[in-house]
Amino acid sequence: MKKKNQPITLKGFRDLLPAQATIRKQVKETLVEVFESFGYEPLETPTLEQQALLLGKYGDEADKLVYKFLDNGKRKVGLRYDLTVPLARVVSQYKNDLPLPFKRYQIQNVFRADKPAKGRYREFTQCDIDIVGNTSPLADAEIVALIEKCLQRLDFAEFTIRINSRQVLFNVMEKAGVPKDKTLSVIQSIDKLDKKTQEEVEVELAEKGISSNTIKNIFVSLKNAQPDEYLQKVIAALESLGVQKSSWKFDPTLARGLDYYTGPIFETVVTEPKIGSITGGGRYDKLMGSLGSTDLPAVGTTLGLDRIVDVILDQNLWPDSAKSTAQVFVSIFDPSFEEYSLKIASDLRDQGINTEIYLNSQEKLSTHLKYADRKNIPFAIIAGSDEVSKQQLVLKNLQTGEQTTCSFQEVLEKLKDQDI
Amino acid sequence: MKKKNQPITLKGFRDLLPAQATIRKQVKETLVEVFESFGYEPLETPTLEQQALLLGKYGDEADKLVYKFLDNGKRKVGLRYDLTVPLARVVSQYKNDLPLPFKRYQIQNVFRADKPAKGRYREFTQCDIDIVGNTSPLADAEIVALIEKCLQRLDFAEFTIRINSRQVLFNVMEKAGVPKDKTLSVIQSIDKLDKKTQEEVEVELAEKGISSNTIKNIFVSLKNAQPDEYLQKVIAALESLGVQKSSWKFDPTLARGLDYYTGPIFETVVTEPKIGSITGGGRYDKLMGSLGSTDLPAVGTTLGLDRIVDVILDQNLWPDSAKSTAQVFVSIFDPSFEEYSLKIASDLRDQGINTEIYLNSQEKLSTHLKYADRKNIPFAIIAGSDEVSKQQLVLKNLQTGEQTTCSFQEVLEKLKDQDI
Repeated sequence: MKKKNQPITLKGFRDLLPAQATIRKQVKETLVEVFESFGYEPLETPTLEQQALLLGKYGDEADKLVYKFLDNGKRKVGLRYDLTVPLARVVSQYKNDLPLPFKRYQIQNVFRADKPAKGRYREFTQCDIDIVGNTSPLADAEIVALIEKCLQRLDFAEFTIRINSRQVLFNVMEKAGVPKDKTLSVIQSIDKLDKKTQEEVEVELAEKGISSNTIKNIFVSLKNAQPDEYLQKVIAALESLGVQKSSWKFDPTLARGLDYYTGPIFETVVTEPKIGSITGGGRYDKLMGSLGSTDLPAVGTTLGLDRIVDVILDQNLWPDSAKSTAQVFVSIFDPSFEEYSLKIASDLRDQGINTEIYLNSQEKLSTHLKYADRKNIPFAIIAGSDEVSKQQLVLKNLQTGEQTTCSFQEVLEKLKDQDI
Repeated sequence: MKKKNQPITLKGFRDLLPAQATIRKQVKETLVEVFESFGYEPLETPTLEQQALLLGKYGDEADKLVYKFLDNGKRKVGLRYDLTVPLARVVSQYKNDLPLPFKRYQIQNVFRADKPAKGRYREFTQCDIDIVGNTSPLADAEIVALIEKCLQRLDFAEFTIRINSRQVLFNVMEKAGVPKDKTLSVIQSIDKLDKKTQEEVEVELAEKGISSNTIKNIFVSLKNAQPDEYLQKVIAALESLGVQKSSWKFDPTLARGLDYYTGPIFETVVTEPKIGSITGGGRYDKLMGSLGSTDLPAVGTTLGLDRIVDVILDQNLWPDSAKSTAQVFVSIFDPSFEEYSLKIASDLRDQGINTEIYLNSQEKLSTHLKYADRKNIPFAIIAGSDEVSKQQLVLKNLQTGEQTTCSFQEVLEKLKDQDI
C-alpha cells in the first residue's frame, strides 16, 4: 500500500455522519410505517441498469444527467436515475409473479450528473410509493392521502400538495395552438415557473420556436384552467379519504419535468426553508407499454428523503432527535474490573438497555467520561474496587453530574424509568 | 418514447421482490438493534469514490473487480467495493468531528465485477461494524461478541466463528522461508483452502514461484501454529464477554483475502447450506496511515446480508416471515359503499392496524378476495348495503373461510387479539 495524497469525497457527493444518518434512519422508519399501514410492500432494484432502459424515458434534458459507462464486459450500463423506470421494468419482467394491482414502496439512492448546489447532490435518496394496474381515481387519491399522512406523522407544521393533471396541460397547449410535437418541450419550460420568472420562461419558449401570440395564449389558458373530469373524481375521493382541504390545492401551472406522466400530477412544497418540492409524482399509464410490454396504468409519488430531512432540521421539528444510540455508558478504568464491568454491560443489554462500554481499561476515568459526554450518552456506570466488592454500581447522570450508589436491579429500574 | 426490446435486469444483478425484500428488511432491523444495543452509530458514504481511494488497498486480484469509469467531468471514479476503505477515508477526513474511539455501523451495497455464480452477485449488501482508534484486545473481542449476538438473535442454530491472526500467518511464512515480498500473495492463496483442495493451492503456490520445500514447510507450520500473545488476550476476553466456547474456534488456516489486515482475523461459517463465509473481518491498523493520514488502529467485521438471508431461507429459520404487510383487507365492491369503506380503513389505520383497501369498486367481490388471498392477508372486511345501513361489518378469516358480522369496535378487538 503506497502513501497517497489523502483522497476526499467526490464533488457533489456526501458522507452522512452519525447525527445525520440517525435522523435519516428515523425518517425512513416513519415513512415505512405509514407505507405499510396502507399495505404497501418493499421492493429493491439494482443500482446499475441497461442504458436502453434508462434513456428516452425522462426527456432530453434529463437524459444528459444519467451516469453512463461501459462495464468490463463492454455492456452499456448506467446508474439508476429514479425508481419509477426500474419499477416499470420489474412489472414488465415479472408480471405473472406479482399480484395486480401491485402496491410497492422502494427506498433507494438515485444518481444525477447535475451541477452540485446547496441541497442538490449527485446521489440522493428517493422514497417511492406506486400502485400499478389500477385506473381508478381512488388510486390517485390514495397516493395524495399517503403523502399527507407521511408529512403529518413527520410533524410537518405546514405544507401544500399542489395538484394538476397532464390532461389539463395538454388541453391548455392545444387551445393555445402549441404544435403537438412541441407540447412536452413546452411543458418542461412551464415546469420551471417555480424557479424562474414568467418573463424568463417566455424567453425560453420563444427560443424553442413558439410564437409570441401562442406564448400569450398559453399563460391566459393556464390562468383559467379547471380540473378535467378525472381529476374532479380524484379530488372528490380526497374527501372520503379524510384528506384535509388545507393540505392541497389545484394549481394549473404545476407541470412536473419528466416526460412519462399522462394524467394527474402532484408535488408538495413548504414555505420555509426555500427549497424545491419535497414530493413529486403522478399518473403514468404508458410507461410499461413503452418497454415493449403490455400497457399497465400506474400512479405514484417520490418523497425526497434529503429535502424532508432538511425541512425537519431547518424548522427544528424534532428537537429530541439528537439523543445517543446508547442509553448508558459503562466505564472500566482498571484492568482488574474488566470482567465485572463487561458482565454488567452484557446483563443490561439482555434487559433491553442499549449499553456502550469503553474498551480501554488503561485510560483515565476522566477520558472515559469525556467520550460519553461527547456522544451525548445521558448516564454512566462506574464500578471501582469498593463497588465490585459490594456487588454495587455508581450511576452518574452526565447532564446534572448527580451520582448514586445502587444495586444492578436499582440501576435497571432507574434506566427503564427514564424511557430513553 | 420509442418502443424497444424489453430491457431486463443486468447479468449478475437482481431484483428483490416483496417476499425477499421483506425478509431482508427484517434481518437488517434485527442487526441494527444488536449494533445499537452496543452503542454503535450509523454512517453512510457515497456509492462513487475516487479510483485513487479504491485501488491498491485490497490486493491485485481484487483491484481487477473494482467497477471503474470516467464521469462526465473526466474524473476517475469507481463504485464502492467494500465499506472498510470508505470508513478509513471518513475517519481521515473528519478526524476532528468524530469521537474516538469511533464505533459505527454501516449497511450499504457494494459492487464487484466478479463472475456471477449461485449466491454470488455483482451488487450485494454488507453490514459492517468497526471500532476505530482502539488497540485493546477487548475491541477485537467485542466484534466477535457482536457477531455471536447477531446470529443468536437471528435464530441461527449452528455456526462457527473461525479466528486466526495475520501475525500468526506472518510468523508461519517467515518460519517456512517465504520471501517477504511474496507473503501477501501466498496468504491470498492460503485463503482459498476452504474452496480448493490443498493440492490445488500447492499448484497455485508453485506457479507463484514458491519452492516445493517452502510449500511443504508452510503446511507443516500452519498445522502446528498457535495463537500469538495478542490473540490469546482476545480469546481470554471472549469469555468475560460471555461468548460461548461452542461459537468459535482458533483456525490457523484462516487467511482472509484482503491485503489490509494486520492482526486478528475472523470469519463465520455454517455447515448447511454450502455457501462461503457469512461474516468476515479483522484488525487493520495501517489502513488510515496508507491514506496519507495519521495511523489509527481499527478492527471490525462485515456481515453479509445476502448469505445470512440465504441461510435463514434454506434452513427455514423464520417460518413466520411470509406474513403480509397488511393485517386486514377492506373490500369495496360497489361505488356506493366507497365512503363507508374508506372511512373504516382510515379508522383502522389510526388504531395501528395495517389496512389495505382494494381501490377498484367496479370489480367483483371474488376478484377482491382473490387478490387479498394472493397477498396472504389473513382477514378481510366486507361491507354491503345491509351492513352499511346497520353500521356493521363482516369480518372474514381468509384461511378458514369463517365469517362474522360485528361492530367496528368488535373487529378492532378481534384484530388486536390476533397479534398479527
